[in-house]
Amino acid sequence: APAAPAVQTGGREIRWRLTSSFPKSLDTIHGGAEVFAKMVSDMTDGKFQISVHAPGELVPAFGVVDAVQQGTVECGHTCGYYYFGKDETFAIDTAIPFGMNSRSLTAWMYDGKGMSLLREFFAGYNIVNFPMGNTGAQMGGWYRKEIRTPADLNGLKMRLGGFAGRVIAKLGGVPQNIPGGEIYQALERGTIDATEWVGPYDDLKLGFHKVAPFYYYPGWWEGGAQVSLYVNDKAWNDLPAEYKAIVTAAASFAHTNMQAMYDARNPIALKQLIAEGAKLNRFPREVMDAAMQARNEVYAELNETNANWRKVFSDYEAFMREQYQWIPLADGSYDQYMAAQRL
Amino acid sequence: APAAPAVQTGGREIRWRLTSSFPKSLDTIHGGAEVFAKMVSDMTDGKFQISVHAPGELVPAFGVVDAVQQGTVECGHTCGYYYFGKDETFAIDTAIPFGMNSRSLTAWMYDGKGMSLLREFFAGYNIVNFPMGNTGAQMGGWYRKEIRTPADLNGLKMRLGGFAGRVIAKLGGVPQNIPGGEIYQALERGTIDATEWVGPYDDLKLGFHKVAPFYYYPGWWEGGAQVSLYVNDKAWNDLPAEYKAIVTAAASFAHTNMQAMYDARNPIALKQLIAEGAKLNRFPREVMDAAMQARNEVYAELNETNANWRKVFSDYEAFMREQYQWIPLADGSYDQYMAAQRL
Repeated sequence: APAAPAVQTGGREIRWRLTSSFPKSLDTIHGGAEVFAKMVSDMTDGKFQISVHAPGELVPAFGVVDAVQQGTVECGHTCGYYYFGKDETFAIDTAIPFGMNSRSLTAWMYDGKGMSLLREFFAGYNIVNFPMGNTGAQMGGWYRKEIRTPADLNGLKMRLGGFAGRVIAKLGGVPQNIPGGEIYQALERGTIDATEWVGPYDDLKLGFHKVAPFYYYPGWWEGGAQVSLYVNDKAWNDLPAEYKAIVTAAASFAHTNMQAMYDARNPIALKQLIAEGAKLNRFPREVMDAAMQARNEVYAELNETNANWRKVFSDYEAFMREQYQWIPLADGSYDQYMAAQRL
Repeated sequence: APAAPAVQTGGREIRWRLTSSFPKSLDTIHGGAEVFAKMVSDMTDGKFQISVHAPGELVPAFGVVDAVQQGTVECGHTCGYYYFGKDETFAIDTAIPFGMNSRSLTAWMYDGKGMSLLREFFAGYNIVNFPMGNTGAQMGGWYRKEIRTPADLNGLKMRLGGFAGRVIAKLGGVPQNIPGGEIYQALERGTIDATEWVGPYDDLKLGFHKVAPFYYYPGWWEGGAQVSLYVNDKAWNDLPAEYKAIVTAAASFAHTNMQAMYDARNPIALKQLIAEGAKLNRFPREVMDAAMQARNEVYAELNETNANWRKVFSDYEAFMREQYQWIPLADGSYDQYMAAQRL
């Protein structure tokens, strides 16, 4: 029999490389890029392929913005706040101390002015940005010693995500920006006294409780940390319109899926951490208040010195102010009631 | 000059009709289907077109499940709990009294067993289900008179969404299942004494505060009400694999977008409602406790009498139990601190 004619499937064949800031061991946050790439492939019958690369394969963990800006890779999956040294405005794309929670930040990005303001900012780096994951409110990290007063932060060498170091430094702490894959060793060797990463599910995998058992909450510097897809603008503009929509929807799917993974898995991991010796504590009110005060000072300074920050932050803060007048009502009072029940 | 050859774009041309349970005036919940249809069209260069129809155009507001099951339309956008008369298990796909909040329910659907359990259930109705929207925790509705004790619910004719009527009935209330587009008239005419819909943004549009000013929270029967896309299984199975992925991702985008719209818009609408005379009140603890007790009785009965319910609910309740041990820690304590600040 004659061979059947090849099916003419119209979409263009495209191959992209994605570099991630996150180690492969974390199926949540590294996995977000895998989920995205698979969805793009599935939606295009395999014609649009995106290969996902761990830190160091192509680019170092914190080299994602440079690599995307220069077109070394077509896209990357990272947190903006790692790059606050270039411009503090990057941090607003992830989380800023005492900033918005996961749902509010997504609301600002999807239905507020967040996306347009940040697109305008990222255009200066040849980047088109997409929300592609959120961790929810994070835990406040692992400490060798208890934190009883703000003075206990003085001189503390602590790994924490990017921009929050500015606030920790105001409190006398010594912030360290270390990629996820390298933290355990630094903590074990005593190069640092404390670390935060995300929350129970990731933290259990990274094993911090074995060397620094005091586990505090909440992570006031990450009330809802967004992870982002950054696409090189030339690569983006070269896409047909339907592939642009496909990238947008796949990023959105991965965004929601990552929050779901953290939410589903954190409670179970927390129990295991406690069984393995983690000592759970809430940050004392006095520590929270000192941090809030330091945060306000940092932001007041930035509003004076960084016009990009001021433009984006002023809308962010106004949106957040509205959010926190509403959150306690329906969702807040509901969750409070439910948490007090024996279910 | 000769005409350029037609570009060979390979995807199959498909036309579907979607029937919605929600009036066009609600850009949030009716709009969710429009967002979905546009995304599908954009991702297929217009080859896969889904027309969105308001209640009554093709099918009545509460006829969506029958129409999808019978293949009268290829798909519909509705809330499962409207159909609890067929089987109470439908309600778990939307919201059940004192059930999961928005993030937890999405986590159960995306990363827990929720999707597989509900897919199995919906297969009995020739339906493939997708989460496609959530309202967040709802408000507890509009009342002509204050609700001070559980006795004030006795004899109250109240419109509320589907299944929650079972619990209201245990408290002596008289539940009414009325589509969104017909509530105001019923309330104005005095056919009902109270109503709930969703929250400030929708409620303001529907105008309930003009006829029933007492506005209670939280909506304990809808701690996070999911809206769903129901697809006829033959129509689904007829799709090429890439269109299945496209429908999945478009539904996910619309899911997240709807929650974002509610979150962004509710706070502003609430201020306007208060300015126009809405009287905001928290349900008294005694009323909440009586409702929780009634809820537990209803679920105990269903666990005995409905095997579908028991199977899905037992996993749902176990997942929720874990969630509410975790929620107060990072997210809960963070939100509580932030809500107490002057931002």
